[in-house]
Amino acid sequence: MSEIFIGIDLGGTNIKVGCFDSELNLLRKVSVATEADMGPAVVVERMTEAIIGLIEEAGFKLGDIAAAGIGTPGPADYRKGIIINSTNMPTFKNVPIRQMVSDALNCPVAFDNDANVACLGEFTAGAGKDVNDMVFFTLGTGIGGGIICDGKLVQGAGGNGAELGHIIIYPGGRSCNCGQKGCAEAYASASSTAKRAAEAVKAGVESSLKKVLEEKGDISCKDVYEHLKKGDALAKKITDETAEVLAILCINMLHTTEPKRIVFSGGMINAGDILLNRIKDYFDRQIWKLKKETVEICFATLGEDSGIIGAAAMGKELV
Amino acid sequence: MSEIFIGIDLGGTNIKVGCFDSELNLLRKVSVATEADMGPAVVVERMTEAIIGLIEEAGFKLGDIAAAGIGTPGPADYRKGIIINSTNMPTFKNVPIRQMVSDALNCPVAFDNDANVACLGEFTAGAGKDVNDMVFFTLGTGIGGGIICDGKLVQGAGGNGAELGHIIIYPGGRSCNCGQKGCAEAYASASSTAKRAAEAVKAGVESSLKKVLEEKGDISCKDVYEHLKKGDALAKKITDETAEVLAILCINMLHTTEPKRIVFSGGMINAGDILLNRIKDYFDRQIWKLKKETVEICFATLGEDSGIIGAAAMGKELV
Repeated sequence: MSEIFIGIDLGGTNIKVGCFDSELNLLRKVSVATEADMGPAVVVERMTEAIIGLIEEAGFKLGDIAAAGIGTPGPADYRKGIIINSTNMPTFKNVPIRQMVSDALNCPVAFDNDANVACLGEFTAGAGKDVNDMVFFTLGTGIGGGIICDGKLVQGAGGNGAELGHIIIYPGGRSCNCGQKGCAEAYASASSTAKRAAEAVKAGVESSLKKVLEEKGDISCKDVYEHLKKGDALAKKITDETAEVLAILCINMLHTTEPKRIVFSGGMINAGDILLNRIKDYFDRQIWKLKKETVEICFATLGEDSGIIGAAAMGKELV
Repeated sequence: MSEIFIGIDLGGTNIKVGCFDSELNLLRKVSVATEADMGPAVVVERMTEAIIGLIEEAGFKLGDIAAAGIGTPGPADYRKGIIINSTNMPTFKNVPIRQMVSDALNCPVAFDNDANVACLGEFTAGAGKDVNDMVFFTLGTGIGGGIICDGKLVQGAGGNGAELGHIIIYPGGRSCNCGQKGCAEAYASASSTAKRAAEAVKAGVESSLKKVLEEKGDISCKDVYEHLKKGDALAKKITDETAEVLAILCINMLHTTEPKRIVFSGGMINAGDILLNRIKDYFDRQIWKLKKETVEICFATLGEDSGIIGAAAMGKELV
């Protein structure tokens, strides 16, 4: 009997679904609009239809699914399989998503937050596939995290481990949406990087970004990196501050779970080597001298597929 | 056949040895002077004599030892079982301690750094015995650390995980002996706490500690807590700063491996509830508001025995 695994990446805008063979090779994938405003029942129905279409195209039927995995943004009760609420899916309140998907697909379903799932994807088939200990960061609206220790995802006592964006870097510093002050996320996420640039321009700092702010009413993280490449001094300062926070995060994680590799992912890695090299520079300058460190700091390699691959891998662990 | 386990805590001043039954109940223990200046061969010989004496008193013989464990201060190559060098035992350079002890006792021997071993002791039989995820700090000359994730000690990719005293709390801050700036250890170890007090007195801050400095030529961490109890304002300020650093360490570890319990140990916990309550206060004030946190912050319960218990537990895992 053929066995296949399904990986689901449920986001506020799109549901991405992948169908994998027993070696976790991607056979086929599809993305459909979430239409979260229609409510959880409709979303799961749309998801199920997409999955059935996908596996039929791949030459399988519903009964061939051995297990599935699903990743969503938090906060959720991952142990109980419930989405508590969701910034991007306001109709989702206390939704027993794991059971709903399990009923629809008639198979066991694993459930975890999107950053942990993407971490597992990179660990299984991407930037971390040849190591046993890794740390993973997603740089987007916020900073998500994932930790692999000795080949296993760190879940934490309550299933909320690896909220690495909320490590405090500057005590008493910038206010974070979480209620703390000085979190890494309040400085070095894509949104916070853009926000710091806009604040500086509004405060009168000379920069070619001033025109962007005037024309678009806002500055994006992409704008910052574009103007950095053109030599803008403010864009350089903002990037340096972001890189320094990310380097301190790397140092702190090295002294915690001592990964062999640290992987950055998310929209902000489009900035490319100019960002990666700054992070490595700050790391090398600030890391201890007691022993030579050989941790590798790099970018993710799977792009948007990390979520469906990690979800399928998580499902596979169930059987 | 009876099986016993040996736990060894090798320090610069004393070698502590414990003999345990197969349930890791302590049968008998002894402490002998290390006499490190005599060199590693003599130290291992003294250690072996102490162990043989101990097990004979307990009614056993050398062949009854199923396994042993040994903890030492770093830096060491824990995978290869070698003490690279030691601040407190200058004659120890590239000493294959694990093999030497294994040859002497004719049994398998586990080897790890003293903080990890003490962490495992508290996890096995002390403050963490009823949880599955814990974080452990020793507050002494430096700050050592240990992490238990899902019942297992986190070793790290190179065996150097959980160097938690070198988590950077204040980037660009006080210089640490490790070469970094702003490490937790540079503020909140017993030595750094005392040092900050002495610096303040020397800088002219009014304090009842001034007389201590004049009479003894130095201020100890114990002095700080004694003068705190008598109401000295500087002692309060220094303690508050120490507690705040330790609280931020707790917050950062909560967002990393999400322990159920955080355990402080080492000489500084003699300060008592006055310190513990300040740490909890800062934690409660500064922790995120996204969800209610229930992590328990407490003191270790095994005192000096944590090292021999943890070492024996580590040995037991070998067989």
